[in-house]
Amino acid sequence: MTGLSDEARIARATLLRVSEAATPLVHHVRAHGVEATLADIRAGALIPGVDVAALKTRLAEADGADDLAQAARVDARLVCPGDDEWPALLDDLVRIDADCFGLWVRGPERLDDVVARSVAIVGTRTPTAYGEHVAGDLAAGLADRGWTVVSGLAYGIDGAAHRAALAAGGSTVGVLACGIDVVYPSGHRSLVSRVAEQGLVVTEYSPGAAPQRHRFLVRNRIIAALTLGTVMVEAARRSGARSTLNHARDLLRHTMVVPGPVTSAMSDGCHVALREVTGSVVVTRTDEIVEQCGHLGELADPLSGQVRPRDRLGPLVRRVFDAVPVMRAAPAERIAVTACVSTEVVEPSLAALRALGLVERLPDGWRMSRAGRDERHADARPDLALPLDWL
Amino acid sequence: MTGLSDEARIARATLLRVSEAATPLVHHVRAHGVEATLADIRAGALIPGVDVAALKTRLAEADGADDLAQAARVDARLVCPGDDEWPALLDDLVRIDADCFGLWVRGPERLDDVVARSVAIVGTRTPTAYGEHVAGDLAAGLADRGWTVVSGLAYGIDGAAHRAALAAGGSTVGVLACGIDVVYPSGHRSLVSRVAEQGLVVTEYSPGAAPQRHRFLVRNRIIAALTLGTVMVEAARRSGARSTLNHARDLLRHTMVVPGPVTSAMSDGCHVALREVTGSVVVTRTDEIVEQCGHLGELADPLSGQVRPRDRLGPLVRRVFDAVPVMRAAPAERIAVTACVSTEVVEPSLAALRALGLVERLPDGWRMSRAGRDERHADARPDLALPLDWL
Repeated sequence: MTGLSDEARIARATLLRVSEAATPLVHHVRAHGVEATLADIRAGALIPGVDVAALKTRLAEADGADDLAQAARVDARLVCPGDDEWPALLDDLVRIDADCFGLWVRGPERLDDVVARSVAIVGTRTPTAYGEHVAGDLAAGLADRGWTVVSGLAYGIDGAAHRAALAAGGSTVGVLACGIDVVYPSGHRSLVSRVAEQGLVVTEYSPGAAPQRHRFLVRNRIIAALTLGTVMVEAARRSGARSTLNHARDLLRHTMVVPGPVTSAMSDGCHVALREVTGSVVVTRTDEIVEQCGHLGELADPLSGQVRPRDRLGPLVRRVFDAVPVMRAAPAERIAVTACVSTEVVEPSLAALRALGLVERLPDGWRMSRAGRDERHADARPDLALPLDWL
Repeated sequence: MTGLSDEARIARATLLRVSEAATPLVHHVRAHGVEATLADIRAGALIPGVDVAALKTRLAEADGADDLAQAARVDARLVCPGDDEWPALLDDLVRIDADCFGLWVRGPERLDDVVARSVAIVGTRTPTAYGEHVAGDLAAGLADRGWTVVSGLAYGIDGAAHRAALAAGGSTVGVLACGIDVVYPSGHRSLVSRVAEQGLVVTEYSPGAAPQRHRFLVRNRIIAALTLGTVMVEAARRSGARSTLNHARDLLRHTMVVPGPVTSAMSDGCHVALREVTGSVVVTRTDEIVEQCGHLGELADPLSGQVRPRDRLGPLVRRVFDAVPVMRAAPAERIAVTACVSTEVVEPSLAALRALGLVERLPDGWRMSRAGRDERHADARPDLALPLDWL
């Protein structure tokens, strides 16, 4: 592994042991770095919002080198910011002031590769047959299409998703709320092993750490951050899955919800999320998830008939597209006004539309290309799933 | 009944017989009135977009007085714009260029009273047990709370909704796609009678008119217009219920959808609608429908805690509210630009906000009131169901 020096990695391991994930310490680490932060804690310096005395006690007992050795015994490594393998996705946690200082990783794959096209599937630990079926179905479909399924290795929906991804020969990532060498829940011993063989098991928590209650909620932000979107499949009204979905929303990831019978308490949390989580969309099959999270031009399903370029546009770009004049070119500012979007949005949108061949640039502005005009006149396919508009 | 003169009512009956609902004739009627329009048709005058020759043939055979007499035989009356009983809600059809020229009405209630607090429940003619159960449950709950259930008197979801409203002793309105004296579907003979006894049966179609296929879709706009919101309960991917929901959206009514198992084809249309119909929200129980459609301060569920005035605003009004300046007043046109709404929307919205005490009018325009400022700063309650934003 390239990236950090041994000393820096040991310091990270020590920091992880001392800090507990996502504490107010993030500001200090961001401003001063890991080693200086550890020195400040050792010196008992004042760090705003942080109980330095408590951390100092923990630091006295912490030994990053020992944690690395302990992890190595289960073939786990520590992946840190600065390592090649570190996924840029995790840096988005800065956005919610909950930086990840490093991840203990077990498994043959490179973490950044595995999560490049990944979706989280989360839900209740006590699903109905319906929820288990749908979770497995979606996970298998994602695996079939080369997507990685990320989940929390818990009983219920998590387990169904991991298992189906494995069975489909796909890659899957399990995010623990305990040490990389701790088996939890105990009934998932063999599942955890299989995920570590065919995919990756990861955690922020130091070797030996017990799966304490609060750690599950803190862990959920990692599930949201590691993926392009989170799918909620069955959740009761109060469910940890909701925290994952909220994190996904805060991290500007796609938030997707599988509905169910309104008569089922296990779908209550899903329906509440659809009503409350801004930007959340209903998904009912794998194609819709891929359509949501996939990149432009990533076709979901050749069987669903011809998909028109316009259908593939994001909501803002589509608005810009609809505002481009057919015959007489208009300047970008004019199009921004018509589309009710800011000028920062209109320029990249027009560039993207031009790359797709839908608009053309003339000396006096922008107008539809011939392909764009055809697109404009083609009726939007009523049976094609479109993301709800963002604005 | 006060309102129109006998001559004017006869002319309306004649127009309904001649025009078929929602033809391009609406522009001419709006500009010149009913009697002049009939005279123009009789004279074979040119009316843009209208096949006057065809209408002239129909007019030769039409006799409004005879239609009124025929309707009277089944105790039906003709309610027209200008009558006390005419619901202002129907005037919104102008917005989609599909004015209603009058409604044949059968039943003891006043139409305007009955629909003042009303919700449409629509869906497939071939529901599952789940859909039938949920439709009945919601309709009964609405009836319990004094809301009128409007539907199309068809088999399936329509019938379940009407029946449950009747059984709960509530009011219900059936909108036909045939003449007021025609029984369709034949299996609903007794249901139609009971609705006409306990609620109202209404139609645009002249006495004796057969339930032609296209009339069902045209009829659906009346269902949407008569109500504050439309709830879709079970619909296949291609379903007439979708047209009702689309009309509701176009009429700025609340659009609500009951989800179901993603494995059920009869919920497919619902899930597609949730993805495609902008502003549509998931509803799972009566309280959520009332919360959505109820007026300011109409609490759905005392358990759900404090509801803020802003939460009660419709999506467009909320946008206008958010665009009103806090300190320096701005003219309505300026606010319309900021909110990205048309001037036709901004004026009534500001009037509504003023009636709520949220904005105030100054000589140079509009600004927040003190209550409005408080509202603006209060966090939206995360546990309260908000409609998705309109755009």
